[in-house]
Amino acid sequence: MIIQPQSGDGLHEACGVFGIYARGEAVARITFFGLYALQHRGQESAGIAVSDGQRAILYKEMGLVSQVFTEENLRPLQGHIAIGHVRYSTADSSRRLSAQPFLLESALGPIAIAHNGNLVNTEDLRQELFTRGVGLASYCDTEVLLQVLVGAPGDTWLERIRHMMKKALGAYSLTILTRDTLYAVRDPWGFRPLSMGRLNGGWVVASESCALQTVGAHDIQEIPRGAVVIINDDGARIVEGAPPEKPNLCIFEYIYFARPDSIIDGQLIHNVRQALGRELAREHPVDADLVMPVPDSATPAAIGYAQESGIPYGEGLIKNRYIGRTFIQPNDRLRKAGVALKFNPLSEVLEGKRIVVVDDSIVRGTTSRPIVEMLRRAGAREIHMRISSPPIKHPCFMGVDMATYDELIAHRLSVEEIRKEMGADSLGYLSLEGMIRAVQRPKENFCLACFTGEYLFEQKAGGFVRVHPHRQTV
Amino acid sequence: MIIQPQSGDGLHEACGVFGIYARGEAVARITFFGLYALQHRGQESAGIAVSDGQRAILYKEMGLVSQVFTEENLRPLQGHIAIGHVRYSTADSSRRLSAQPFLLESALGPIAIAHNGNLVNTEDLRQELFTRGVGLASYCDTEVLLQVLVGAPGDTWLERIRHMMKKALGAYSLTILTRDTLYAVRDPWGFRPLSMGRLNGGWVVASESCALQTVGAHDIQEIPRGAVVIINDDGARIVEGAPPEKPNLCIFEYIYFARPDSIIDGQLIHNVRQALGRELAREHPVDADLVMPVPDSATPAAIGYAQESGIPYGEGLIKNRYIGRTFIQPNDRLRKAGVALKFNPLSEVLEGKRIVVVDDSIVRGTTSRPIVEMLRRAGAREIHMRISSPPIKHPCFMGVDMATYDELIAHRLSVEEIRKEMGADSLGYLSLEGMIRAVQRPKENFCLACFTGEYLFEQKAGGFVRVHPHRQTV
Amino acid sequence: MIIQPQSGDGLHEACGVFGIYARGEAVARITFFGLYALQHRGQESAGIAVSDGQRAILYKEMGLVSQVFTEENLRPLQGHIAIGHVRYSTADSSRRLSAQPFLLESALGPIAIAHNGNLVNTEDLRQELFTRGVGLASYCDTEVLLQVLVGAPGDTWLERIRHMMKKALGAYSLTILTRDTLYAVRDPWGFRPLSMGRLNGGWVVASESCALQTVGAHDIQEIPRGAVVIINDDGARIVEGAPPEKPNLCIFEYIYFARPDSIIDGQLIHNVRQALGRELAREHPVDADLVMPVPDSATPAAIGYAQESGIPYGEGLIKNRYIGRTFIQPNDRLRKAGVALKFNPLSEVLEGKRIVVVDDSIVRGTTSRPIVEMLRRAGAREIHMRISSPPIKHPCFMGVDMATYDELIAHRLSVEEIRKEMGADSLGYLSLEGMIRAVQRPKENFCLACFTGEYLFEQKAGGFVRVHPHRQTV
Amino acid sequence: MIIQPQSGDGLHEACGVFGIYARGEAVARITFFGLYALQHRGQESAGIAVSDGQRAILYKEMGLVSQVFTEENLRPLQGHIAIGHVRYSTADSSRRLSAQPFLLESALGPIAIAHNGNLVNTEDLRQELFTRGVGLASYCDTEVLLQVLVGAPGDTWLERIRHMMKKALGAYSLTILTRDTLYAVRDPWGFRPLSMGRLNGGWVVASESCALQTVGAHDIQEIPRGAVVIINDDGARIVEGAPPEKPNLCIFEYIYFARPDSIIDGQLIHNVRQALGRELAREHPVDADLVMPVPDSATPAAIGYAQESGIPYGEGLIKNRYIGRTFIQPNDRLRKAGVALKFNPLSEVLEGKRIVVVDDSIVRGTTSRPIVEMLRRAGAREIHMRISSPPIKHPCFMGVDMATYDELIAHRLSVEEIRKEMGADSLGYLSLEGMIRAVQRPKENFCLACFTGEYLFEQKAGGFVRVHPHRQTV
Repeated sequence: MIIQPQSGDGLHEACGVFGIYARGEAVARITFFGLYALQHRGQESAGIAVSDGQRAILYKEMGLVSQVFTEENLRPLQGHIAIGHVRYSTADSSRRLSAQPFLLESALGPIAIAHNGNLVNTEDLRQELFTRGVGLASYCDTEVLLQVLVGAPGDTWLERIRHMMKKALGAYSLTILTRDTLYAVRDPWGFRPLSMGRLNGGWVVASESCALQTVGAHDIQEIPRGAVVIINDDGARIVEGAPPEKPNLCIFEYIYFARPDSIIDGQLIHNVRQALGRELAREHPVDADLVMPVPDSATPAAIGYAQESGIPYGEGLIKNRYIGRTFIQPNDRLRKAGVALKFNPLSEVLEGKRIVVVDDSIVRGTTSRPIVEMLRRAGAREIHMRISSPPIKHPCFMGVDMATYDELIAHRLSVEEIRKEMGADSLGYLSLEGMIRAVQRPKENFCLACFTGEYLFEQKAGGFVRVHPHRQTV
Repeated sequence: MIIQPQSGDGLHEACGVFGIYARGEAVARITFFGLYALQHRGQESAGIAVSDGQRAILYKEMGLVSQVFTEENLRPLQGHIAIGHVRYSTADSSRRLSAQPFLLESALGPIAIAHNGNLVNTEDLRQELFTRGVGLASYCDTEVLLQVLVGAPGDTWLERIRHMMKKALGAYSLTILTRDTLYAVRDPWGFRPLSMGRLNGGWVVASESCALQTVGAHDIQEIPRGAVVIINDDGARIVEGAPPEKPNLCIFEYIYFARPDSIIDGQLIHNVRQALGRELAREHPVDADLVMPVPDSATPAAIGYAQESGIPYGEGLIKNRYIGRTFIQPNDRLRKAGVALKFNPLSEVLEGKRIVVVDDSIVRGTTSRPIVEMLRRAGAREIHMRISSPPIKHPCFMGVDMATYDELIAHRLSVEEIRKEMGADSLGYLSLEGMIRAVQRPKENFCLACFTGEYLFEQKAGGFVRVHPHRQTV
Repeated sequence: MIIQPQSGDGLHEACGVFGIYARGEAVARITFFGLYALQHRGQESAGIAVSDGQRAILYKEMGLVSQVFTEENLRPLQGHIAIGHVRYSTADSSRRLSAQPFLLESALGPIAIAHNGNLVNTEDLRQELFTRGVGLASYCDTEVLLQVLVGAPGDTWLERIRHMMKKALGAYSLTILTRDTLYAVRDPWGFRPLSMGRLNGGWVVASESCALQTVGAHDIQEIPRGAVVIINDDGARIVEGAPPEKPNLCIFEYIYFARPDSIIDGQLIHNVRQALGRELAREHPVDADLVMPVPDSATPAAIGYAQESGIPYGEGLIKNRYIGRTFIQPNDRLRKAGVALKFNPLSEVLEGKRIVVVDDSIVRGTTSRPIVEMLRRAGAREIHMRISSPPIKHPCFMGVDMATYDELIAHRLSVEEIRKEMGADSLGYLSLEGMIRAVQRPKENFCLACFTGEYLFEQKAGGFVRVHPHRQTV
Repeated sequence: MIIQPQSGDGLHEACGVFGIYARGEAVARITFFGLYALQHRGQESAGIAVSDGQRAILYKEMGLVSQVFTEENLRPLQGHIAIGHVRYSTADSSRRLSAQPFLLESALGPIAIAHNGNLVNTEDLRQELFTRGVGLASYCDTEVLLQVLVGAPGDTWLERIRHMMKKALGAYSLTILTRDTLYAVRDPWGFRPLSMGRLNGGWVVASESCALQTVGAHDIQEIPRGAVVIINDDGARIVEGAPPEKPNLCIFEYIYFARPDSIIDGQLIHNVRQALGRELAREHPVDADLVMPVPDSATPAAIGYAQESGIPYGEGLIKNRYIGRTFIQPNDRLRKAGVALKFNPLSEVLEGKRIVVVDDSIVRGTTSRPIVEMLRRAGAREIHMRISSPPIKHPCFMGVDMATYDELIAHRLSVEEIRKEMGADSLGYLSLEGMIRAVQRPKENFCLACFTGEYLFEQKAGGFVRVHPHRQTV
């Protein structure tokens, strides 16, 4: 039984973006702290681009925000406009080219872009660029977006952004820096969150409201679907970039990605997660002595389950807080001996108890079994797994590094088979309806493709098209 | 209002030690994973020394365990005996010399030592060494211990260890590696924990049982006060190194230092902390809507408080999990704007509520006020601070980097004054008696000097002496 | 008097390029050793791109070849085609973006390029790219060349290379890697050298023949002006890329840039430099006791001067071989005290002597004066400076980082004024005619613009044009 | 034929030392520049210790002086006394512990030491220290010297230094820093050079006078054998530390180690080397067309040979100036193909010529053969090797990393056999007498053990003793 650090059965969010326009402020420094608060959305690389109204410069590197930036490399980043980006963690070294923001010189001056999301028609756009004779330095869809912008018709960046929004299919919450303006762009479906706020006479934009709060912003609001926010010395204007489609927010922002202290679509993430736990308790009650989370992301749902069920809440697994990017691998004997790097059970707590273990989701199912084994060995008498989201049966094409069909355990196995595989006494997934009740918004507002397989876009000969009846094909 | 990363109102534990004797095992690799599990005891530096029966080698460096060690620098560390060490975090660069283990060649061959604790008579021992014509490369008491060992009378390391135990006053849990033997030594007072276990025919030793569990050890037991454990090809023998004194365990191991999944003096830390919370609820009840911890260390106590009081448990502050060693400082405007790097409040949870905030201790009091302010601004109607330990009125000389008298807020101010200073509606510290009830061991078993000022050792002309009546002066 | 390491009165060559196509060979490793031999052409950054017939990958970084590459980062560079590049040294950190090779994906697959030289119409080409909607990530003319190539009309890379050669004005010796072919391209004027050779059934290309020799190549030949060499599994073909113009080799390759063991236009550099010294002796004879070089580049010229004049050759200045990239600056007192980092005089050799000091060129004149002072203080009775090239009166636009008009001492001052400024007893520059005699090729074969001000290209409204009568305007 | 960078047939000098006492000066910075000038004596590690009269601090690291020190790590090194050290290059990573200076706290305050040389009775002294109960952290004899000093009887450092000088057998030129005084110590035999000079009212000490010149010192003098120089606010005093023995200077300082611009025993190294070349020409004349050195160290000897013989001097091999610490190894095919990293021949110069190749010494003989082959392939008709020192037949125990008996080619083979092995047409070593004539000092003044096998010290049961009749046994 081996639980690897950082491996986990994880979903990986693509990115976090930040932007600021504020004369008289240390915009790179504020961006640093904003990215710091978005670190949970990506730990692979970090970068900041700034403009002082004349020229734009960029610093980006592999690593955590706190590792990438030093007083020394922050110092040259002078100006009154900045954007920043954090990217999610992977060992693939070729990803170095994908660190963001991207910055290019163009006919209209410098332009830098930071992107959270994923396009489904990247390959089509790449081919268009190739046909137009543009070479691409990376495999990142953000570079594609940027060259599309640079090559778009129109005398202003706004026209070009609108053009780009016509071309791009998929998820994109963007911050864009030009010589004298900060833009924030959210795709017409609103796949990923994006918020803005005021700061000392200036403006800040971020993937999540928690980052705006962290830097002391006020008057925080979410940016509408399809909107372009234009921020310069004339203030902030919100204009339509593309007609907003029906909303299609990735529901996993509620379940797992976003920080509990962020507000999305008017709801505090923490509260939604507690509500998910309460629904779970109603759908899958069980007679037990203790409700415990798989820490840390499932903690609010476990608290919610406990509140609803009346079973006491407690901790049964301790998470090592210092798990970092380690390349030291346990050898086979260590594996067999049960090196438990990520979690340790609280044996005395578990001894003889019937426990409810709440987790937020199961992707590959690779960590559930060792956790159940670990709890069993620690003395738990009964182990009832409760998952605060439905079975994930379909991969995501919208920026979540989720796995392929074959890897998805719920695609391969029934719930009962999964229960057997993990060795639990019972297993309950929250139903789709229960999840929707908990999030308190119409089902139609969300991208649920990983649960339902109903994708908004579908690959046809000649590229991706939107397939839902209520939307037009591009 | 500014809450700095890693600053906090912190107590800093000195170190964690590890040791292994196991033929046929990858001892350095196992030590790596053991140190990984002890990382909470020290984040400044990490090191491993190994012996293959012929020669001993050492690798140590500043940084987290996962940063210090790579497959490349681990590879040469071949042998069947290893010791390891993690040291606590500080910005003082001169501490580089203090990274452990220390390794010396001597008349009896190589000897390396890893030390958790603090001697009170270091200066006396330094002067003795100087008088004897020994130069010292660092200001670390561990180097002093090692040169005392090397220069001790006796033909065997055991004799020398016993000599050293006669000389050394203070806290020391040690792992010692010689050419062919692993020793584990715990001071006669048992200030710091030290445990051992079996592993595949070999033996492991660690500051806390959680590290033994992590590497898959079994038959885990605590090492008695004054004992020397001798581990070599003949197996493990426990002999008396110095007559055990009355126990004097640092009670802060229960309150804050140790990992919740470790067992000390037969009790699971997590359970003790819940019990502290329950006592706290009994001593300082209050009518409120929510019990929340200052995460993460106070979580078990808050759960205990909630269980006892019947007030629902919940989360009200989100902690940034990616707080690292950053040297980027907020500027003044950011400070005033309220950059909240470490915590963010869950406004919707707190809005209009009367809340009980449980923390484990207050040292300087510097973080309590900003936390109260933050919660107040987030809408909390009443804020009742509850501390699961008594007021800290006296500094520690036993290896906890606690502060000086002047810095200790409870030395300067009364409880009511502290309450005013932090702006809480009420403030309750657990009483000494309540704490003792919760830990379920006699008061006499603990070092309580930071609460009572009754030190075991006292500085007299000519050095430190033991002052308690029931103990003899050295 | 202060002579800074690496500052000097230097001319800086832009770059060195390398290429190899050889199945069954460790092409990246061979490229490493080739770049090693070209290190004198650039010390700022190094990079290697490889293709295995399927995909192309790249590794480049700031630093010397031996610092940039390790077994670890060389290992993934698998394939049978490789190109490499070294770039010249500068402290400007934004140059990081200019490290080469550049690699892009395009409609025809991956393409990487390494460039030695400098375009004069870069800005025109940039504007054309901008107009075409292509964004550029750097200020480097090599990226411009590459996007021009990628966007050129034509179904084959050869057609596109020919198109690029029509557009590009200036100096370019290139190695180009595509999925399955290695190209070598030399501009129609032959500003910079470029040679090729055979290696174990494969082919190698390099800026200088010394690099081909170093990797064990044979059948070495220089690549003609305007030629494109196409190397793939069908062997090597040399075709015309653009009609060759009259030759215009940078004569400073003979005087200073190239390694003495390279052959350019059929002549060994070392021999040319000796001949320059002999001409210098004939033009500027003097009665003296010792001929000494300013080491190391002027050594062959000094030997030539000594041979021709009959005055004994000897060393009078010792050069610190370990001059590296140091950022430690002497303070003012050290400057006044005369910290001589780069050179030290051999006082006993110089004491009372009349010396001829041979240097290869004077650019800003900043090091000549301290050298004369140093020699004078060391006891030299007479100091006769002899320069093995004519006065540099005009800046270079062809890739040599030479200085602006104002900085060029020979632009501001007469020879007699320069002599006074440096404090020498006499000063003799080699005449243009003498230089031409020494290089044994017609004057018309060379770019002599820095001596004569007669530039091949000139900036007109609307861009650069060729101005010499015997050439057509593009 | 493969000639590895930095491998060579090298002799490796142990170290260079520096010291400065100068109020009002940036002593660490000056030490940096002094070490820079001593870099040829050691490239493995560099370090500087300073004292401000109160406390002493140290910075040392692996690497070249220019790599080790930055403005950032130099800044804290404040004070008015400093010592520095460079150590020679080796790949053995355990040597990290041997980086100098060493700094210890002691009864008399801090003391740091930098050492050039080698003791022969290190092991005896180690055992004495072990017996006295002192543990040692490294295998470096400098740490031994320092603990001997610290443990010596005497109330002053001078007394202790004198005690140490009684105990230490072998070569030691030292700079020692205490809280308020700089000491320079040279062993009674004067194995290694050591000079001092004045600087702006202060004093500087260095292994070689070139370093004193580099920092602008004047009134430079060599420090007598057995002397202790005491430098503090009272000025500089030279006292006897131990009775000077008959001189025993390592003659390889003249032949190879020292920089040509240094003065040792009143003679400029460069001149001695030219004289060695002249003697060599007289002893081993040959009819030839060209005299060339193996660059760079043999250049003065080759010039001397040319002057004496009347054969023209020239260059035939070009040395790659950028040879650095590379770990990239040529593969077998590259080896066979003849990768020539360190040298390249000037074929046109050599073509058809009869050449005299002057080298300064042959140790293992591993590079002579590939050089001869390379020259032969480049077209040389006859190759006459001339060595400006006698055959090395015995290893050195005085700090030169020379090889063991088995490795020394002149121990195994006769001159004629060596000639055959290297493939030269003739081979001539300078005779011992010729060498002595060239150095112009009595034979008795030198350590010639590597040529004669007559060691000053010899290992007997119970340790090393001096064996020459004219010296007393310790």
